[in-house]
Amino acid sequence: MSRLWERGEPLEATIARFTVGDDPQLDLRLVAYDALGSLAHATMLAEIEVLTHEELTALRRELRQVVDEARRGEFEIALAEEDGHTALENRLTERLGDTGKRIHTGRSRNDQVIACTRLYAREALLRVADELRETSLALLRLATEHRETSVPGYTHTRQAMPSTLGLFFSAWAENLLDAAPWLEVAYQHLNRSPLGSASGYGVALALDRQRVSDLLGFDRVQRNTLAVQNDRGRTEMLVLGTLLGPVLDLSRLATDLIWMSSEALGFIRLADQVTTGSSIMPQKRNPDVLELIRANGARLRARHQEAANLYAGLTAGYHRDLQYTKAPLLAGLEETVDVLRVLRPVLSTLTVDDRRCRESMDRSIGATDAVYRQVAQGRPFREAYKEVAADPEAAVESDPSEGWRARRHLGAPGALDLGELEERATELGEWHRGRQRAVAATWQALLG
Amino acid sequence: MSRLWERGEPLEATIARFTVGDDPQLDLRLVAYDALGSLAHATMLAEIEVLTHEELTALRRELRQVVDEARRGEFEIALAEEDGHTALENRLTERLGDTGKRIHTGRSRNDQVIACTRLYAREALLRVADELRETSLALLRLATEHRETSVPGYTHTRQAMPSTLGLFFSAWAENLLDAAPWLEVAYQHLNRSPLGSASGYGVALALDRQRVSDLLGFDRVQRNTLAVQNDRGRTEMLVLGTLLGPVLDLSRLATDLIWMSSEALGFIRLADQVTTGSSIMPQKRNPDVLELIRANGARLRARHQEAANLYAGLTAGYHRDLQYTKAPLLAGLEETVDVLRVLRPVLSTLTVDDRRCRESMDRSIGATDAVYRQVAQGRPFREAYKEVAADPEAAVESDPSEGWRARRHLGAPGALDLGELEERATELGEWHRGRQRAVAATWQALLG
Amino acid sequence: MSRLWERGEPLEATIARFTVGDDPQLDLRLVAYDALGSLAHATMLAEIEVLTHEELTALRRELRQVVDEARRGEFEIALAEEDGHTALENRLTERLGDTGKRIHTGRSRNDQVIACTRLYAREALLRVADELRETSLALLRLATEHRETSVPGYTHTRQAMPSTLGLFFSAWAENLLDAAPWLEVAYQHLNRSPLGSASGYGVALALDRQRVSDLLGFDRVQRNTLAVQNDRGRTEMLVLGTLLGPVLDLSRLATDLIWMSSEALGFIRLADQVTTGSSIMPQKRNPDVLELIRANGARLRARHQEAANLYAGLTAGYHRDLQYTKAPLLAGLEETVDVLRVLRPVLSTLTVDDRRCRESMDRSIGATDAVYRQVAQGRPFREAYKEVAADPEAAVESDPSEGWRARRHLGAPGALDLGELEERATELGEWHRGRQRAVAATWQALLG
Amino acid sequence: MSRLWERGEPLEATIARFTVGDDPQLDLRLVAYDALGSLAHATMLAEIEVLTHEELTALRRELRQVVDEARRGEFEIALAEEDGHTALENRLTERLGDTGKRIHTGRSRNDQVIACTRLYAREALLRVADELRETSLALLRLATEHRETSVPGYTHTRQAMPSTLGLFFSAWAENLLDAAPWLEVAYQHLNRSPLGSASGYGVALALDRQRVSDLLGFDRVQRNTLAVQNDRGRTEMLVLGTLLGPVLDLSRLATDLIWMSSEALGFIRLADQVTTGSSIMPQKRNPDVLELIRANGARLRARHQEAANLYAGLTAGYHRDLQYTKAPLLAGLEETVDVLRVLRPVLSTLTVDDRRCRESMDRSIGATDAVYRQVAQGRPFREAYKEVAADPEAAVESDPSEGWRARRHLGAPGALDLGELEERATELGEWHRGRQRAVAATWQALLG
Repeated sequence: MSRLWERGEPLEATIARFTVGDDPQLDLRLVAYDALGSLAHATMLAEIEVLTHEELTALRRELRQVVDEARRGEFEIALAEEDGHTALENRLTERLGDTGKRIHTGRSRNDQVIACTRLYAREALLRVADELRETSLALLRLATEHRETSVPGYTHTRQAMPSTLGLFFSAWAENLLDAAPWLEVAYQHLNRSPLGSASGYGVALALDRQRVSDLLGFDRVQRNTLAVQNDRGRTEMLVLGTLLGPVLDLSRLATDLIWMSSEALGFIRLADQVTTGSSIMPQKRNPDVLELIRANGARLRARHQEAANLYAGLTAGYHRDLQYTKAPLLAGLEETVDVLRVLRPVLSTLTVDDRRCRESMDRSIGATDAVYRQVAQGRPFREAYKEVAADPEAAVESDPSEGWRARRHLGAPGALDLGELEERATELGEWHRGRQRAVAATWQALLG
Repeated sequence: MSRLWERGEPLEATIARFTVGDDPQLDLRLVAYDALGSLAHATMLAEIEVLTHEELTALRRELRQVVDEARRGEFEIALAEEDGHTALENRLTERLGDTGKRIHTGRSRNDQVIACTRLYAREALLRVADELRETSLALLRLATEHRETSVPGYTHTRQAMPSTLGLFFSAWAENLLDAAPWLEVAYQHLNRSPLGSASGYGVALALDRQRVSDLLGFDRVQRNTLAVQNDRGRTEMLVLGTLLGPVLDLSRLATDLIWMSSEALGFIRLADQVTTGSSIMPQKRNPDVLELIRANGARLRARHQEAANLYAGLTAGYHRDLQYTKAPLLAGLEETVDVLRVLRPVLSTLTVDDRRCRESMDRSIGATDAVYRQVAQGRPFREAYKEVAADPEAAVESDPSEGWRARRHLGAPGALDLGELEERATELGEWHRGRQRAVAATWQALLG
Repeated sequence: MSRLWERGEPLEATIARFTVGDDPQLDLRLVAYDALGSLAHATMLAEIEVLTHEELTALRRELRQVVDEARRGEFEIALAEEDGHTALENRLTERLGDTGKRIHTGRSRNDQVIACTRLYAREALLRVADELRETSLALLRLATEHRETSVPGYTHTRQAMPSTLGLFFSAWAENLLDAAPWLEVAYQHLNRSPLGSASGYGVALALDRQRVSDLLGFDRVQRNTLAVQNDRGRTEMLVLGTLLGPVLDLSRLATDLIWMSSEALGFIRLADQVTTGSSIMPQKRNPDVLELIRANGARLRARHQEAANLYAGLTAGYHRDLQYTKAPLLAGLEETVDVLRVLRPVLSTLTVDDRRCRESMDRSIGATDAVYRQVAQGRPFREAYKEVAADPEAAVESDPSEGWRARRHLGAPGALDLGELEERATELGEWHRGRQRAVAATWQALLG
Repeated sequence: MSRLWERGEPLEATIARFTVGDDPQLDLRLVAYDALGSLAHATMLAEIEVLTHEELTALRRELRQVVDEARRGEFEIALAEEDGHTALENRLTERLGDTGKRIHTGRSRNDQVIACTRLYAREALLRVADELRETSLALLRLATEHRETSVPGYTHTRQAMPSTLGLFFSAWAENLLDAAPWLEVAYQHLNRSPLGSASGYGVALALDRQRVSDLLGFDRVQRNTLAVQNDRGRTEMLVLGTLLGPVLDLSRLATDLIWMSSEALGFIRLADQVTTGSSIMPQKRNPDVLELIRANGARLRARHQEAANLYAGLTAGYHRDLQYTKAPLLAGLEETVDVLRVLRPVLSTLTVDDRRCRESMDRSIGATDAVYRQVAQGRPFREAYKEVAADPEAAVESDPSEGWRARRHLGAPGALDLGELEERATELGEWHRGRQRAVAATWQALLG
């Protein structure tokens, strides 16, 4: 019997498969943006009289239809076409003959692929911002609801001081919202028009790069034509690096929730719809959704590394290696949206066991609060610390669980100001809505 | 117009898609191995009288058919089935009723998925070994042919000493062959039977783990049931780590060949079938195949990192995070095969420009040989070095290009021993053939 | 003879060495900031009447002296003290007795170490911004000087279209300046006061966190006390992620310059003071400085990964693992400054060989310009492309080297607008100067 | 007040500091090996009559003394000397004049530094093997002692099936011992002589490379002179990749022990000497040693990545970037030894709370054993599973904690075969002792 693993593929087929890679599949997400970018380019070409009005009209009709098909998931890329750009060009040429060919005047594959990737990533980033805002609000709702639920606060995986679930959930909400300015700077970095840079050296044609940029709703033109190419891979790395913040936050939060819902802690219970059974152990309910959220932190780090590895060693200008940067970018953006989104049903369906939260506390967890009661009465900290350390149990009152109430300075569990976080979520929402509307208006204007 | 990027997916669908992930697609490669593993398990269950002879006969017939279908690429995994294991179980149950269900006795998804992944990776690793041997031989052929082709030797991207293409090509061949003992130890690590470890704690049934191991051609049983689970992710990382050696070798060699075929150096010319044109620049022939070979070094490092990230933070035993380790393992193995394979037509079709190789040498490249001519006549090295350094051009004879002939110690360009490398390739081939035959015999015996 | 490698160290010593790690050495950079943080904390404690006026006076005197000593490199941390915080506390206690101990009231090691690391990193980041601005200007000077120096433009390591050194150098300047908004957002992320978060749960004392924040020149208080701890490791990763942009830019630029100064290309010559000789080859001048600049891209990626790895798997709150995040942060910041700084003498001393730049061009490099000459006369692009592709040499005029002059749209080599980049450098300089002055004013006010 | 962070360093000093890097400090570990390598080289040079007998005698005397000084930690490398090789050459020249210079005949810095790094790493790897063996045995002692201590077995951080501490500790012992063949193949990869490869192209002198290899106890000569240089960075990556296995094992085990010693689980108690107190919370005992063991997994992954990043993008032959590969290799090897070593006192001093181990089990943990009791009586698995799943509590006998006793197949908790693991440890010990003795005999013969 021959090896199962053997594919028996002829070398030419291997070369073809190898150079094409995953592009046909990946480009299904990009083809609508490619058509939009083409439409803006064609509009400008008509304005500088490289295309006639009739040609533009024909191209607009056809490109609109491609956008529609792509949005409905009906546009297809044949394997032999290798990628979405060829599929698009073939389509236009089939239908419009020479006019279809003429659209490639004044551009190269290099600026074309950068343009549609940025248009895609720009919207994906808006989606990330929106999901992040919603997930922050879900955390804040839990924080509000359990604002006074006493629970051990930990350091070093050891009971440290009495705390609250309110502090816990709003901490992660605050951490998540910290991503907002990073997302905005990533958006600005992305939102620059590469079109007209061609293969990195421009073309001898009076392209109106600013006009194309405006038509596509970019904030500005990325100037130096070679700088545009040098930015490839780097942009992907920087965008993925921005996602690392919130995705690793959720990865850690998932780890917390897995432990908090374990038999040993039992602070929370996960709903059945976000857990799964076992093929061998009849009693099990496994926190698979949370485990996969955690695991996405591991994956995203690898995707970031992949983008960095791919461009780090290259000299200036385009190299084919950069084609591979598309896969980690698209995967990273979509997985980030999923992770942010999938956490919400976990949060909205979990139930808290107040009693176990409170009763799990060792009496000695109140030691620091006992020290500070003395400090508040004027005793030097180190003296009070030593006395309590000698016999913590004795120094602590019988139920230390609400010691957090006396901690009332800014940010402390006894004085949570959730309103400030809601405001930050609102601001992010406003930024998102503004950008979103601008993008929608851009497409409406372009598609007419 | 609504956002193009929006999928409008309901949350339940997101959760389902999120937990299923890429398994249906990935498992198409594993399902034949899953059927083989199931057949061995069933055979043993019949021997310990958990299954009847009739049940085994029915299962064998059905599993053989699954293997056949999977080998022909005809076995299908419906999205709703989530993964290949369920698809296989559904198939058996559909066709055989209760007998189909009974095969899950004495195993868990956990040991089942490890088993089929190892069987797959074992053959993939054999394939890597075979391709590596062939590619080494292709390099040795070039080394033999261009054994006396003078070419500058470089350090620091600077002409260092006259060298030969023979030294260059056989260096990379030797580097590649260094991977052999690593592949063998990876194979041994892989080739241990996990079956019977169940979910990490065994089952209360007199399973004959050794028998299952023998039936599947494993070298031995991986003992401690929990150790089997702890090995998940780690095995993937170690196997991928083994591939890093040869893939980064080829990545660097590709970089060399890209430069050597550039206009500035022109030492070699790449054939048209391994280069591509440009959409904007009519004169271009781009070395895309070599660039993608180079880029696979960047990708494989990310895949290794992904496997490491996924398992590094976990406590003992199974966690769902580990499911994600399948993707980088499968991708890494297949990409390694492709890279090794795709390089060969590049090598077999390249042509060497002897004249440019030789004439590109600056006269001063002979300085070190000039120093050693004096040393050989008894002059102290530092003295000769200083004299030559004062005016290298003067010290060097007019044509230094064959200075390498006088370097004849072991491994030097004047005394290449390619026979030793051919022997190492032969030894690797023997190991590969032996293992290959054993695997084939195993499947033949099992399928009957 | 016993093993050379054996240290014969008793286990207790190994444990002590293991837990102390590199802290004594690393903390030498932090101790001045620790003293400044302590001074602000003490000032606030006096204001809320936890310390008396006399105690504050004594502490201020002593802490000022520590700042002075640390700035002069004279403060010492004994190994037995384990870290800079203990060394500081010991010093204060030695000199001031109980008053020295009292300063630890209302804080924990956890918020203390975060505070001084942020104060350090804040200034390091300003230094990065300043060096980045200067290095951009150095690139712009070269771009201005060689604005009309024709040189091949490359894609795929192949001659693509005629370009200029002006385009090349200003591309990298533009890429570098893209880091500005990222540095600013990193600065904002850093510039939040952690003090008062204690070990993550606050203390039962009416700490005025806003006041401490103001005294240290932080932009705001980082609120939720647990969020502060969750930010540890993450901040380090995000800051290092920000540095990846410019450091990888310079890494790639270094690779370009190494090749451009190689014998084969010879476009530029590196000055002797930035190259080194060889211990064996008398004629060599090696570009070690550029190679090490390149290699710092590889190192910084590992440092980023290290910070990410360290915090990614942890549950909420402090864990000792986080102590290790200090080393990659400090190293990454200092190496970034060095890389930016060390490149400048390379740039300021390099000389350009105009003739080789121009003459290296193959005639066929003019093919795309030839196509566009026809397009400009109304011929369809694909038609012109095909004709030129049939015989590029024939289609190209004898000297294609100044074809870039006809490319005059925004960002093209024929119309470089270096003034816009100078403005961006000026804006960065203004931001830097403003922040710098604010920090200086803060220290002056605090130290009195 | 000027910025604290500003170093005010002149550019030349920055360049000097930048190119020297950490070499003076790192080379203190290598200088003895450099002297030994030099001694073997000199011996061979005398045999081929490049050195006189008198010169060799003088060199041997001096080099022996350097070895002695280096072993006592008394050899010093001045900053101005830049590295250990220069320091050694200076020393020999100072003491022996021209004879000292002559030793550099027939070698380059490139093969010299590879040689001493390999000699160092070879012994470090032996030390790793020895510590790994000892730590495995420490785990096996715990497994033996607690062979019958019932404890919950977990999957997905959820109670899965009753297990034992014997299974737990011996699982990690088995996992650790899996590293043995990997260490051996890494040792073989390392243990090849690079000397005579010079800068990658050999020298025109009748060097006896085999003789030098024999004198230094290498297994064989690494042939092709260029292959030796191409192996730089790769060897470092492969060796570090080998260490990832055991270091990540211990990292995970540390995480387990941290949780098992937490208040919530309380299965074990850590001794005071391996825990530390808190500066603010009097009652705390923190598992710092275990946390740092865990964190070394994160660091080692970054060190591996660093080595890979550094060499991955380079063309054939030496580049200065490779100098940086020394730091991660040395750090990784020494940290691995520390981690393996430091875990032992944690293990030898921990105490087990049998009662909490047993009583922590939920009754439903016995569900799978209940299913298999029915299966053993002939009931189909899926039927028994369904019945138990309907009401697990009811199906499980009142005390399920010793259900593991009925699981007695190979590797299951009811039939642990620790003897097999002891044998594997013994075999590793024998390999280690054999190699160790050979190295010692080599040094004795060489130093006379």
